[in-house]
Amino acid sequence: MTDKPWGGRFTEELDQVAARMNASVDVDARLGPEDVRGSIAHVRMLAARGIVSAEDAAKIAVSLAQIGGEIERGEMAWRADREDVHMNVEALLTERIGEAGGRLHTGRSRNDQVATDMRLWTRSACERVMEKLDRLIAVLAVRAEGEIDVLVPGYTHLQRAQPVRLSHHLLAWCEMLERDRDRFADAQKRMNESPLGAAALAGTTFPLDRAMTARELGFSRPMRNSLDAVSDRDFLLEAVSGLAICAVHLSRISEELVIWSTQEFGFVEMTDRFTTGSSIMPQKKNPDMAELVRGKSGRVIGDLVSLLVLMKGLPLSYNRDMQEDKRPVFDAFDTVSDGLDVLAGALATARFRADRMRTALLEGFVDATEVADWLAARGVPFREAHHVSGRLVRRCIERGLVLATLPLEDWRAEHPLFDETVLTAIEPEVAVERRDVEGGPKKARVQAEIAALLARLAPRLDARAVARDLGVEGG
Amino acid sequence: MTDKPWGGRFTEELDQVAARMNASVDVDARLGPEDVRGSIAHVRMLAARGIVSAEDAAKIAVSLAQIGGEIERGEMAWRADREDVHMNVEALLTERIGEAGGRLHTGRSRNDQVATDMRLWTRSACERVMEKLDRLIAVLAVRAEGEIDVLVPGYTHLQRAQPVRLSHHLLAWCEMLERDRDRFADAQKRMNESPLGAAALAGTTFPLDRAMTARELGFSRPMRNSLDAVSDRDFLLEAVSGLAICAVHLSRISEELVIWSTQEFGFVEMTDRFTTGSSIMPQKKNPDMAELVRGKSGRVIGDLVSLLVLMKGLPLSYNRDMQEDKRPVFDAFDTVSDGLDVLAGALATARFRADRMRTALLEGFVDATEVADWLAARGVPFREAHHVSGRLVRRCIERGLVLATLPLEDWRAEHPLFDETVLTAIEPEVAVERRDVEGGPKKARVQAEIAALLARLAPRLDARAVARDLGVEGG
Amino acid sequence: MTDKPWGGRFTEELDQVAARMNASVDVDARLGPEDVRGSIAHVRMLAARGIVSAEDAAKIAVSLAQIGGEIERGEMAWRADREDVHMNVEALLTERIGEAGGRLHTGRSRNDQVATDMRLWTRSACERVMEKLDRLIAVLAVRAEGEIDVLVPGYTHLQRAQPVRLSHHLLAWCEMLERDRDRFADAQKRMNESPLGAAALAGTTFPLDRAMTARELGFSRPMRNSLDAVSDRDFLLEAVSGLAICAVHLSRISEELVIWSTQEFGFVEMTDRFTTGSSIMPQKKNPDMAELVRGKSGRVIGDLVSLLVLMKGLPLSYNRDMQEDKRPVFDAFDTVSDGLDVLAGALATARFRADRMRTALLEGFVDATEVADWLAARGVPFREAHHVSGRLVRRCIERGLVLATLPLEDWRAEHPLFDETVLTAIEPEVAVERRDVEGGPKKARVQAEIAALLARLAPRLDARAVARDLGVEGG
Amino acid sequence: MTDKPWGGRFTEELDQVAARMNASVDVDARLGPEDVRGSIAHVRMLAARGIVSAEDAAKIAVSLAQIGGEIERGEMAWRADREDVHMNVEALLTERIGEAGGRLHTGRSRNDQVATDMRLWTRSACERVMEKLDRLIAVLAVRAEGEIDVLVPGYTHLQRAQPVRLSHHLLAWCEMLERDRDRFADAQKRMNESPLGAAALAGTTFPLDRAMTARELGFSRPMRNSLDAVSDRDFLLEAVSGLAICAVHLSRISEELVIWSTQEFGFVEMTDRFTTGSSIMPQKKNPDMAELVRGKSGRVIGDLVSLLVLMKGLPLSYNRDMQEDKRPVFDAFDTVSDGLDVLAGALATARFRADRMRTALLEGFVDATEVADWLAARGVPFREAHHVSGRLVRRCIERGLVLATLPLEDWRAEHPLFDETVLTAIEPEVAVERRDVEGGPKKARVQAEIAALLARLAPRLDARAVARDLGVEGG
Repeated sequence: MTDKPWGGRFTEELDQVAARMNASVDVDARLGPEDVRGSIAHVRMLAARGIVSAEDAAKIAVSLAQIGGEIERGEMAWRADREDVHMNVEALLTERIGEAGGRLHTGRSRNDQVATDMRLWTRSACERVMEKLDRLIAVLAVRAEGEIDVLVPGYTHLQRAQPVRLSHHLLAWCEMLERDRDRFADAQKRMNESPLGAAALAGTTFPLDRAMTARELGFSRPMRNSLDAVSDRDFLLEAVSGLAICAVHLSRISEELVIWSTQEFGFVEMTDRFTTGSSIMPQKKNPDMAELVRGKSGRVIGDLVSLLVLMKGLPLSYNRDMQEDKRPVFDAFDTVSDGLDVLAGALATARFRADRMRTALLEGFVDATEVADWLAARGVPFREAHHVSGRLVRRCIERGLVLATLPLEDWRAEHPLFDETVLTAIEPEVAVERRDVEGGPKKARVQAEIAALLARLAPRLDARAVARDLGVEGG
Repeated sequence: MTDKPWGGRFTEELDQVAARMNASVDVDARLGPEDVRGSIAHVRMLAARGIVSAEDAAKIAVSLAQIGGEIERGEMAWRADREDVHMNVEALLTERIGEAGGRLHTGRSRNDQVATDMRLWTRSACERVMEKLDRLIAVLAVRAEGEIDVLVPGYTHLQRAQPVRLSHHLLAWCEMLERDRDRFADAQKRMNESPLGAAALAGTTFPLDRAMTARELGFSRPMRNSLDAVSDRDFLLEAVSGLAICAVHLSRISEELVIWSTQEFGFVEMTDRFTTGSSIMPQKKNPDMAELVRGKSGRVIGDLVSLLVLMKGLPLSYNRDMQEDKRPVFDAFDTVSDGLDVLAGALATARFRADRMRTALLEGFVDATEVADWLAARGVPFREAHHVSGRLVRRCIERGLVLATLPLEDWRAEHPLFDETVLTAIEPEVAVERRDVEGGPKKARVQAEIAALLARLAPRLDARAVARDLGVEGG
Repeated sequence: MTDKPWGGRFTEELDQVAARMNASVDVDARLGPEDVRGSIAHVRMLAARGIVSAEDAAKIAVSLAQIGGEIERGEMAWRADREDVHMNVEALLTERIGEAGGRLHTGRSRNDQVATDMRLWTRSACERVMEKLDRLIAVLAVRAEGEIDVLVPGYTHLQRAQPVRLSHHLLAWCEMLERDRDRFADAQKRMNESPLGAAALAGTTFPLDRAMTARELGFSRPMRNSLDAVSDRDFLLEAVSGLAICAVHLSRISEELVIWSTQEFGFVEMTDRFTTGSSIMPQKKNPDMAELVRGKSGRVIGDLVSLLVLMKGLPLSYNRDMQEDKRPVFDAFDTVSDGLDVLAGALATARFRADRMRTALLEGFVDATEVADWLAARGVPFREAHHVSGRLVRRCIERGLVLATLPLEDWRAEHPLFDETVLTAIEPEVAVERRDVEGGPKKARVQAEIAALLARLAPRLDARAVARDLGVEGG
Repeated sequence: MTDKPWGGRFTEELDQVAARMNASVDVDARLGPEDVRGSIAHVRMLAARGIVSAEDAAKIAVSLAQIGGEIERGEMAWRADREDVHMNVEALLTERIGEAGGRLHTGRSRNDQVATDMRLWTRSACERVMEKLDRLIAVLAVRAEGEIDVLVPGYTHLQRAQPVRLSHHLLAWCEMLERDRDRFADAQKRMNESPLGAAALAGTTFPLDRAMTARELGFSRPMRNSLDAVSDRDFLLEAVSGLAICAVHLSRISEELVIWSTQEFGFVEMTDRFTTGSSIMPQKKNPDMAELVRGKSGRVIGDLVSLLVLMKGLPLSYNRDMQEDKRPVFDAFDTVSDGLDVLAGALATARFRADRMRTALLEGFVDATEVADWLAARGVPFREAHHVSGRLVRRCIERGLVLATLPLEDWRAEHPLFDETVLTAIEPEVAVERRDVEGGPKKARVQAEIAALLARLAPRLDARAVARDLGVEGG
C-alpha cells in the first residue's frame, strides 16, 4: 500500500468497486490547469519562506509548468489508479524530477488543495458565463434596435393583453439576463478567497505565507478560518443557484420561442441552422434548440438540488461526500453555457414576422383597455369604464366583430359618451405611443432603454460587432 | 442536407453549437443493444405482415444482429454527425446492405423507437438493481445470523434508548431494502408495455401487428394510445422515484456506518479494502465508501428532480426536451448500483465490535425503561413510574453512577416498592429477552425473522453462497 | 415539568421559541380521527390480553369515541401547550375519566403511535385521490364519446404533425391518470402494515397482540421489525412520489388547456365558472384554473424534495426531524386533490371548438406524411418519399398555398407518380381512418378504447352519472 | 358578476372549488401592511400628478392608514369572497369612503401591485433575517471568547484528525453565517427596484411619476421594463436560494450538535430549555431543537425547488401560476428565522464539556500529524515521515496504547531519529500553538479573529449585550 499517499497503517488493497468509486480523476481531471497553477504558487511561497530550497522549488515549478502545458494540450495520460487530479500531477512530477517532487506537498493537504482548485475553476467559469450573457444581451439589444417599429401583443395568462413593441419584449429578456450577470459578479466576490494554507483542517506548523499564495492566485485574501476553508462549498451553492436562475430564464425565453414558432402564433421563424425536421413528417420544422435549452434547464435545477442535499447533513470539516460536488457544478456550467451560445445564434438569425404580429393585434381585443381608459379620462370611474368595455367585447364576440369594426350605435348603446374619436384611440400605434411612462413601450422610451443598455455593455464588448458576427443582418 | 433523415425542406446546415446540442449519441449509444433488438422485432413483423419482403427482412435482421454483436463487444464506431443511436445503427445498416436498409424504418418513427429502447433498457436495469438488492440483503441476513448474540443500544434521536440485538438492527435495514425490491417489481409491471407501432404519434397507415412486436420483445401488451405511447415517460419517473427512495436508504445505512466508525462509537471497523487514509494524517482510517455512498445519494434526488421538472411543462405528444431524459436515468441507475455493490462488500467484511457495544449498553441508561416497566408491572401508573425512573437517572448522573451500581437505599428513596430483583430486570440480556413481541429483539423472534427472510430469498439466490463470495467469514 | 409526559429528569421549562417549534398540534391535529381510532384498537387489545382491566378499557374506549366525535365535528379545542395530537387526546381523556386514562399509553410510545396514525391517514388519503382520479377519467371518457367525430391536429414539438381525433387525445390523458391510480394502489399495499406494538423502538415487555391491533385497524399484518416500524417513512415517500408524478400529469394537461385557450389556437373555451378576468383589461378571459393547477404542481415536487431530503441523513430509529414529514404530505395530497376536482369540473364544461381545430388541420400540412406514405405505398423508398413530400411543402409555403390547393403540375414536378388520388388521400378524415392500428385514431379503434375504459371504471363508479353531475351535456 | 373587479364580460359565477383555488387571501393577507403602504404612495403620486383630486387622495390615504392600523393590530376581517389582499383592502376602502375609493386603482393593476407588495415584504424579511444572523453570530463570538482555552479534536470524515480550539470551531460557523448575511445584502440590492407603474404589463396612459412612488417606498429606482416588472420573480428565487444555503448551514451546525450531544461524544449538553424527553424512556434527553432545525432545512430546499419549477416554464408576462410564489417564500423565511432564533438560544446556554473533549484528544491519535511533522522538520521527506507515523499508530492500536504512552524503544524501532522531545511536541496544547498561520487555531490567532469579528458586528449590535440577554454567562 505504499503507493497511496495514505498507505501507512493499511495492509490490504482496496476492493475493486471501492477503488472505482474512490477514483475521481475521470471527473476532476478537468481541474488540471488550476491544480498546476495552485501548486506553482504554493511552491514559490515555500521557497520564499525557506521551507524548500530555491533550487528544488525551481525544479518543481518548471516541471509543473510543463505538465500544465501537456494538460492544456490534452496530452496528459490520466491514470485512474492514481485516484485524482492531485495525485496524478504529483506522481508524474516525482517521476520526472525525483525526490524533490515529494516536497511540493509540504504544508498542504488535498483538502485545501481541492478547495483552491475548485475556487479557481469556478471563478473562471463565472467569467466565461458572464461573457456569454453579454453576447446574448448584445444580440438582443441590436435586434431590438432593428425591430423598433414592430408591434406585438403583450400577453398575460398567454392571452393577448395590450399592444407593446417587439423591442420592448426583447429588452425584458435583457433585464433578466443582466440580473444574472450581476448575480455572478456578486458570487465571484465571495468565492474569491484563498483556502490554501488551511492544510487538512487546522493549518500547519510550517510558517506559510498565506497572503502570498492568495495574491499570486488573484484571490482577494486568505480565508479567515482553516476549518471553514476546507469544509465550505457555499461558493458552489451560490454559483449553481445563479446558474439555476439563469437556466429558468433561458427556459422562459425558449418557451416563448416554442410558442411563437407554432403555426398558430407564427411570430418567429428560426433559420434552418437552428431547427430540425422529422424522420417521418416532411412538413416539420421543429424548434429543437429552444426545446433542448428548455429541457436542459431542468438539469441545472437537479444539479442545484444534488449539491444542497450533498452538503446539508455534513458536520465540519472535510467529508468525503464532498468529492461529489464536482459533477453537478461542471454540468450546470456546461449546460448554461451551451444554452447561452445556442440562443445567441438562434436569436441573431431568427426572422420575426411583423405581419403575423399585426394580425394578432387586430384580432385580439388588446384595445379594450384603451376603451376603458378613454372613458375614465372622461370622468367615468375606472371600475365602471372597465365593465362597459367588457360588455363591448362581448358584443363583438357574439357578432364575430372586433372593436374597430363595431358600429358606433353599439358603442353608444353601452355608454352615451362614446364618439368616433374612440376609434383612433384604439389603434395599436396610438395606444402604444400613449403609454408614455418610464419602462413603457412608447418608441422614444424604448429607444432610450436600448441606448442605455448599449452604453452599459460598451466597456465590455462591442455589441454591434458581436451581433454581426452571429449573423444579425445590418447589426 | 440530404444526409439527415429529415432534410427535405431544409436548405442550410445546422449551426455548430446547435449540432453539438442536437447530437445525443454520446449519451444514447448506451441504448445500442436495445435499439438493435427492437429493430429486429420490428422488421420480422414487417415481413410477417408482408410490408417488406422476407428476403429484405432477413438481410436486415442478419446485419442488425451483427451490428448488435459489435456494439456489445465495444467495436462500434459511434458518429456524432449521425446524431443519435438510431441513425448510427440505421446508417451503418444501409452502408452494409444497401437500399434494403432503408425499409427498416417503414411504419416507425424515432418517437416510438426511442420509447421502446428506453423501456427495454429500464426493464433490464430494474432487474439488475433487484439482483444487487438481493445480494446486499443476503449479506445482511447471513451477518445477522452470525451476530445473533451481540447486543447493541437501540437509538432514538441518536441517544441510547433501549437495548436490542445487532441482528435486529441489520434486519431493519433488510426491511428497507426489501421494500425497494418490491417497488421496482411494481414499476416494471407498468413499464412493460410496447410503444412500438405508435410511430410519430398517431400510428401509421401500414397494417402493423403491434401485438407481435410486443410479444417478441417480452412486453405484456401494446400501449393503448399512440399519443401516450410517444409522450409518456412515467416509467422513468417511477423507476427513478424508486431509485431515489433506495438511495435514501443507502444514505441512511451509510450515515450509521460513518457514526459507528467514529472513535467515539467504535461499533464497527471497516476493512482496509473499504477505507482510505489521509495524505497528511497518518492515523486516519476514513469510512470513505460510506461517505461516498451517502454523498452520491444526493445525486439521485437531483436526477429525479431533473426528470420531474423536464416533463412538468410539456404538452402532448413528443417534445425534444425529452432527449434529456436519458442522462439522469442512466446516472441514477449507475449510482444506486455502485452503492449496493460497495455496501455489500463493505458490510460482508466489516468487523462489528461487540465489546464496544456492550460498554455503550452499560453506560447508557438504556435500562431506565425497564425500571419504569418494573414499577408499572407492580401497579404503579406508567406516567408515575416513568417519573420515578427519570429521577433515579438524575441521581446517577449527579453522582457519576449507573443504575446497576446505584445503592438500593437510593432506589427506595424514590419509591418504596423497589427491591433487589430490579437489578436483574435491568440487565441488557434480560431486558432484551423480555421484549417478546412480534418484530421485537428477543432472540427467538429475531431468529425466526432471519429464517423467514432467507426463505424469501431462496427462490432467487443462495444467500449463504453470496455472503461467502463477498467475504463473510463462516457465512 | 410534571405536566409533560417526559418531565422526570428535567428541571427547567422549554424556551419560548423552542416550545413553539416543539409543538406540532397546529399541523398534526389533522390526525385526530386516526389517533383516536388507533387508541381504541390499542386499548381493546390491552384488555383482551389482560393488561388493563375490561372496565378501564371500556371507559377509555367510550371516552375516546366521544372525543373522536368532537374532533370530527370540529369541536375539539386543541392546545399548543399539549404539544401534539397524541397528548391533546390523552390529556383530555385523563381530564374526563381520571387515572384510568393514564393506562391507555401502556406498551405504546408516541413513536409507534404517530407511525400508525400517519399510515391510517395516508391510506385513506390515497383512497380519496383514487376516487378523484376515477371521476376525472370518467369525465374525459364521456367527453371522448361525445366528441368522437371531432378531428384535431396531433402535435409534436408543438408543431402540427398529423391529424388525430380529439377523443384520442382525451384518452391519452386517461392513460396517464389510470397509471396514477394504479401507482397509488401499489403504494397502499406497502403502507398497509401495522407499526403498533413497536413501542419506542424495541417492542415492549407487555404481552401485546400485534396481530389483533393490525386486524382491527384493517392492516394486512404487523410490521416485521420494530426498529423499522418507527423509523420507516417509505410509505410517505412513495405516496408523495406518486402525487408528484400525478401533479406532472395535471400540469401537462393544464399546459395544453392554457395553449388551447389562447386566441391563436382557440381550440377550447372554458366556461365562466372556471375562468377569471382582469381588473384592468376588459377583454380578458384567463384560463386561471389551468394556470393554478400547473403552478401548484411545482409545490408537489417541492414537497417530495423536502421529504427525501428530510429522511436522507437519518440514522435509525426515530429522530425528531421526522416531525416535519406531515406538512409536505398533507400539502401534496391537498394540492393534487384540488387539482383533480377543478380539472374535472373545467373539462366537463369546456367547449371544444371543432371549427377552429378543422381550420388548423387544413392549414397545417399535417397531410404531408400522407403524401410520403402515398408514394411509399407505390414502391418509392420511404426516405425518398419523405424528401419529395418535404419539397412539396416548401413549394406551398413559398406560394402561400396548402397541399390541398397545390396544382397537380407542381406535384408532378416533384415526382411523376402523382395523380389526383393523392388529393383524396390527404383529406384529414381519410388520413385518420387509414391509421388502423391498435391504439391509433381510427374511429372504431377509439370507440373500442372508450368502451374498454368505461368497462374498467364500471365496478367503481357510474361514469355517465358522474359526468352528468359535473355538467357534461348529454353525458 | 359585478362584484368582481373583472366581471364585465362574464355571465356565470365561479365554480366552488375554482373559487376556493382562486382566492389567495388566506396566504396573501400577510402582505396587508405592504399593500396599504404601496397604495398610499400610489395615491399621493396620483394627486401630485393631478390624476385624482387632492381631496380624494387625502380621503383615500387617511382611510388606508386606518385600515393599515387595523391590519397590524389583527383587527381586519379578511373575506375569502374578496379573493385576495388587494381586493379586500380596496373593497373595504370603498365601503368606507364611497366612490372616491374606486379612484385608487387608476393607472395600476394587480400585476404591478402584487409585485410591489412582494418586493416590500421580502426586503423587510431579508432585514429581519440579517438581524437574526447577527444575533447568532454574536452569541458564537462571545462564547468563543469564553471558551478560548478549550481544545477539541478537529474532525475530517467524522474521524478525529488534529487538535483545534473549540473557539476556532465556533468561528468556522460564524464564517458560514456571515456569508449568509452578505448574500442577503446583495439580494436586497437587486430586489430594491419599483415595479409600480408597469400596470398590467405595458405601463399606462396616465402620466404617472414612477420615480416618485419608487422614492416614497424606499426603492432605489423604477424597474426599467414594464413587462419584466410584472413577470420577474428573480428577487424571490435569489432570496430563497440564500435561505436554502443558510438552512444548509443551520442543518450542518445542528448535525454537529446532535453528534456532540450523543453519550458517545458528550461534548455538549443542551439545557432543559432546549431539549425534551421521552414518554417511554425516562433517561432520555433528546436534542430535539437541533433535530427540528436540521429537519426543517429540508423544507427550505423544497421551497426553493417549488419556486424554480413554478417559474421555469412561464412565458412573459404575468401568469396566474405566480400566485403560488407566496407560500414557499413565507415558509422559507419563517423556517430559517425560527432556526436562527432557536440556535441562538440553545448555543447561548449550551454547556461545553471541556473534560470530554480532552479525553477525546488524548485517545484519538490526533497527534500523529505532529509526529510526521517532527520527522519532516528533521529532514525526513514528508511522505516517508507520514508512513513512519502511520506505523507507530498501528503499533499503539495493536497494544491498546496511545502515542503518549508508547515506549521510546518502539518509536526508535520505527525511526532512529526519535528522542523524548517528540513527546512534548505531541501534546495537544503544543501542537495547537505551533499552528501559527493565519486562520489557524493558535490562541493569539483565534483571539485576533474574535476581535475582528466583534468589530465587524459593532456598528450593528452590541454582541455582548445580545449574548447576555440570551443567557451567555459572563457574556
